[in-house]
Amino acid sequence: MTQTQPTPAKVNARLGENNYGKAEVKLMKVNRGSERHEIRELAVRVAMTGDFGAAHTQGDNTDLVATDTVRNTIYGLAKEGFAASPEEFGKELLAHFVKTGPRVTGGFMEFTEYLWERVPVGGEGHNHSFVRQMPRRTGRVESQDGQSFQVTSGIEELYVLKTTESGWENYLLNERFTTLPETHERLMATFVTARWEYNTDEVDYDAVWGRVYKQIQETFTDHYSPSLQHTLFLMGQAVLTVCPEISRIWFRMPNKHHLVYNLERFGLENNLEIFHVDPEPYGLMEGWVERAE
Amino acid sequence: MTQTQPTPAKVNARLGENNYGKAEVKLMKVNRGSERHEIRELAVRVAMTGDFGAAHTQGDNTDLVATDTVRNTIYGLAKEGFAASPEEFGKELLAHFVKTGPRVTGGFMEFTEYLWERVPVGGEGHNHSFVRQMPRRTGRVESQDGQSFQVTSGIEELYVLKTTESGWENYLLNERFTTLPETHERLMATFVTARWEYNTDEVDYDAVWGRVYKQIQETFTDHYSPSLQHTLFLMGQAVLTVCPEISRIWFRMPNKHHLVYNLERFGLENNLEIFHVDPEPYGLMEGWVERAE
Amino acid sequence: MTQTQPTPAKVNARLGENNYGKAEVKLMKVNRGSERHEIRELAVRVAMTGDFGAAHTQGDNTDLVATDTVRNTIYGLAKEGFAASPEEFGKELLAHFVKTGPRVTGGFMEFTEYLWERVPVGGEGHNHSFVRQMPRRTGRVESQDGQSFQVTSGIEELYVLKTTESGWENYLLNERFTTLPETHERLMATFVTARWEYNTDEVDYDAVWGRVYKQIQETFTDHYSPSLQHTLFLMGQAVLTVCPEISRIWFRMPNKHHLVYNLERFGLENNLEIFHVDPEPYGLMEGWVERAE
Amino acid sequence: MTQTQPTPAKVNARLGENNYGKAEVKLMKVNRGSERHEIRELAVRVAMTGDFGAAHTQGDNTDLVATDTVRNTIYGLAKEGFAASPEEFGKELLAHFVKTGPRVTGGFMEFTEYLWERVPVGGEGHNHSFVRQMPRRTGRVESQDGQSFQVTSGIEELYVLKTTESGWENYLLNERFTTLPETHERLMATFVTARWEYNTDEVDYDAVWGRVYKQIQETFTDHYSPSLQHTLFLMGQAVLTVCPEISRIWFRMPNKHHLVYNLERFGLENNLEIFHVDPEPYGLMEGWVERAE
Repeated sequence: MTQTQPTPAKVNARLGENNYGKAEVKLMKVNRGSERHEIRELAVRVAMTGDFGAAHTQGDNTDLVATDTVRNTIYGLAKEGFAASPEEFGKELLAHFVKTGPRVTGGFMEFTEYLWERVPVGGEGHNHSFVRQMPRRTGRVESQDGQSFQVTSGIEELYVLKTTESGWENYLLNERFTTLPETHERLMATFVTARWEYNTDEVDYDAVWGRVYKQIQETFTDHYSPSLQHTLFLMGQAVLTVCPEISRIWFRMPNKHHLVYNLERFGLENNLEIFHVDPEPYGLMEGWVERAE
Repeated sequence: MTQTQPTPAKVNARLGENNYGKAEVKLMKVNRGSERHEIRELAVRVAMTGDFGAAHTQGDNTDLVATDTVRNTIYGLAKEGFAASPEEFGKELLAHFVKTGPRVTGGFMEFTEYLWERVPVGGEGHNHSFVRQMPRRTGRVESQDGQSFQVTSGIEELYVLKTTESGWENYLLNERFTTLPETHERLMATFVTARWEYNTDEVDYDAVWGRVYKQIQETFTDHYSPSLQHTLFLMGQAVLTVCPEISRIWFRMPNKHHLVYNLERFGLENNLEIFHVDPEPYGLMEGWVERAE
Repeated sequence: MTQTQPTPAKVNARLGENNYGKAEVKLMKVNRGSERHEIRELAVRVAMTGDFGAAHTQGDNTDLVATDTVRNTIYGLAKEGFAASPEEFGKELLAHFVKTGPRVTGGFMEFTEYLWERVPVGGEGHNHSFVRQMPRRTGRVESQDGQSFQVTSGIEELYVLKTTESGWENYLLNERFTTLPETHERLMATFVTARWEYNTDEVDYDAVWGRVYKQIQETFTDHYSPSLQHTLFLMGQAVLTVCPEISRIWFRMPNKHHLVYNLERFGLENNLEIFHVDPEPYGLMEGWVERAE
Repeated sequence: MTQTQPTPAKVNARLGENNYGKAEVKLMKVNRGSERHEIRELAVRVAMTGDFGAAHTQGDNTDLVATDTVRNTIYGLAKEGFAASPEEFGKELLAHFVKTGPRVTGGFMEFTEYLWERVPVGGEGHNHSFVRQMPRRTGRVESQDGQSFQVTSGIEELYVLKTTESGWENYLLNERFTTLPETHERLMATFVTARWEYNTDEVDYDAVWGRVYKQIQETFTDHYSPSLQHTLFLMGQAVLTVCPEISRIWFRMPNKHHLVYNLERFGLENNLEIFHVDPEPYGLMEGWVERAE
């Protein structure tokens, strides 16, 4: 085959919304201020927005901040700053790039924090040895001007399960493709992803995260669940109750199905004891819970 | 520790934007109409939107479509429908759920298509044996009413690399955190993710996908690249040129860094021959390329 | 199709060592004997060995146990058995298949156990709500006759890190490709995989696992580490000390490098505070620690 | 810290089989000898064996090769060597470490090769632009003395599927846990992992790999398969036939189940058209095919 067709004339095109930066910058900061060391580990993404038209359309890189510089800056500012939460560090980074990059007007910083606990020795946490934990903490800081910031915080990989006190009934039954029987007793499991926004800039992000993390688990336990949707709502309401700083919260909750395995074929009862943990497909619920004024 | 604090009164909360459905439904359809079988494999997500307030706030499931029913429906409609592209199948699914679900007013369907080629035997593709290929095809169909649809199509995991004809120069150099030297000769590699929108409903989605897939690769080869951003723009412009049906296209292109390994320490030259393929961090560029009128 | 080359005559071939069975059978068992439910979740693989020659060479499936039957059996026997540890369940499974499969003479069962803790509410673990934990427990039971068993137990994904009390010195320095400077102060991190064997059949496998899990963490903290190899040995020795049932233990310990980021270029000190967590490559140490008689 | 229990005296322990080195060293080598560039990309692991007792038991690192040096060496020798196959490069590496490391007596090198094809432009492969392919090539070279070598080569992630010409019948049916019905028409899919050994040191490893890769696919198509086990055997026999250099070959072949979705419940026929692609559990077959003399 040879390229026989003439190449068409190029259409006029323009650059739309765009950003660039560095992703998956893996940072660990150790605080050695006392014998009791502290550590924080983040995967950071910084994306800059601004006037990058010439670079895209003309190949003119004038005044562009290299992504390698973004990396250096994340490590450099972590030394001088990052004294409080990852969210505050995000604000420091965005303010810096707007100030430093001639063409940068805003951007966003996203992080995943990997959580560590002290190794337990003799009933206490060790001074300088740590062991990795689930779940993960996440966050996103965005700015249009490097001076004001929109912050979202979150949780990932919080996998919870209850062996009773949940069901699924009274849904649409007389429908061609509906075969699932109703139940008021089942095993319910979900892998909670949550993200929330704030109604103030005066936030102790670390403290709020701890409260949300605790509340989601407690609400999961405290009611009979007629649906994952209702549990989602109750979790959201409870978080809004204990965290006045939070304006609204979003959940993504897959319904990790645990199927009662059919043992009757073998002459065995299965009174919700033996389950096949089905990896997929899964029901998936997403929703915001907001303050009602 | 005992729970000494009184539980605060629950705040008033309301449900915000939300959806639910089934995700990761793995469907294979075989067309046995002739000896030369055809196969298509999709991972499908269907999410419904509508009036689901009572389910969330009251735990009232009346008239809700079960996610198990969503699964059954995907397989059932695949038998009767899914005669053309996955995008058209998405329209069929959304139209169905709006018609069938008393509370459903719209939703979206997302898919990943896994691509297969015929096993080559004696220079030809086999009638009924297939071998899995990279990359993957993606798409999303959304509807507010089950009658009109917004379609986005895409590509994932298209990993391309060039060993010459790229550089990175003339960027912001006199800056505290900038240490990267300029170069007009380097190895450039990226893992292209693309998504595009259409300006018409009369689209042969399969044909367009093939043209985009081919064009992205060709444009990658046909110029000296002063930056991944410029290549992103040229790819977009070329796709708009060969696909009049496409209104705009978005790319997410990580810069998979291949670092020239320092061999001088061992008395060896490294004339861009020996690279460390660094998995992370990576530069990350995102942008839309649109028609300029 | 034009297969022009003549196909060569097939050589004589014979079947060598082989096995078959079912893998990734995801089982959850709930014990509802009291209000305080208990759960165990396993991914199970059962592989059978025996006289399977005819199936392979002739396509004669006579007397073969279907892998679907293996799956059914795992769930079925979990109901009647699996009263103690996963290792004991493995023995039950292998004994069953040797008895049931006319051609089965032995086999192995491998498992990964996903660990759950009770959700903490008011300072106590909840009766029926659980939250997933790292790390994972593993094991393998093998038998040649369905009556005697070789058991190996293990740990995966135990990620530990210390911020001081480790170094790397006095190694081979005058060598062409050696550029790493010595250090007696660094950050050390590893992702411990361990497997151990027993010198007796009378084992409380659950109890031993708990002791090993605790001891590995404690030994990690209790010494200055001149190398990951030495720490590996000390961990092994300590486990053998607290677990007389264990005959020997194997570790696979990657050295997850935390590189001191070069901040001097920016006029900043970096006193082991700011690290790049490098995902790869990593040093990798493997070794057995055994009783010396 | 209140460690109240007395620590037991440490048992005598000794070091058993062990090795150490560097893993996941990501190497790309570009051959720029002509305008038509060539590339090879490997992930390399080198593990050294030898007299490492003092390091483990005493913390004495004298004469140890640092794993950082192993990394440097892989890149350094790739420049001077690695002119032929990855297997030959493995021999070069092991010979080097036995010569250089005062305590090294042997070891092994493992690699995964990521495969690239030239980007097709105008019907031909481009000179310096490449696109990543499935599957992956693997290999392992082992040596006890740095002079003679045992080589194993392999394939990973070769995913093949046939829509007809396979079945599963005549197996053990009258058994308590057996519920699967027989079939002589089904969809069969497997993700082939293969590894093979050689009966000579005079091997063109690149050429052999290509022949095996082609033959496995062709044999998959050329017969009615009464079981994956029989197909495994026929693949092995065919490879031994076309590759006299190979002494024996091992396969690991999961049976990726494609379940006929039950559409009768909805009044629809399903004549092997609509399948649920079940990710797990899967049947798993492993076996060696050897020359029968």
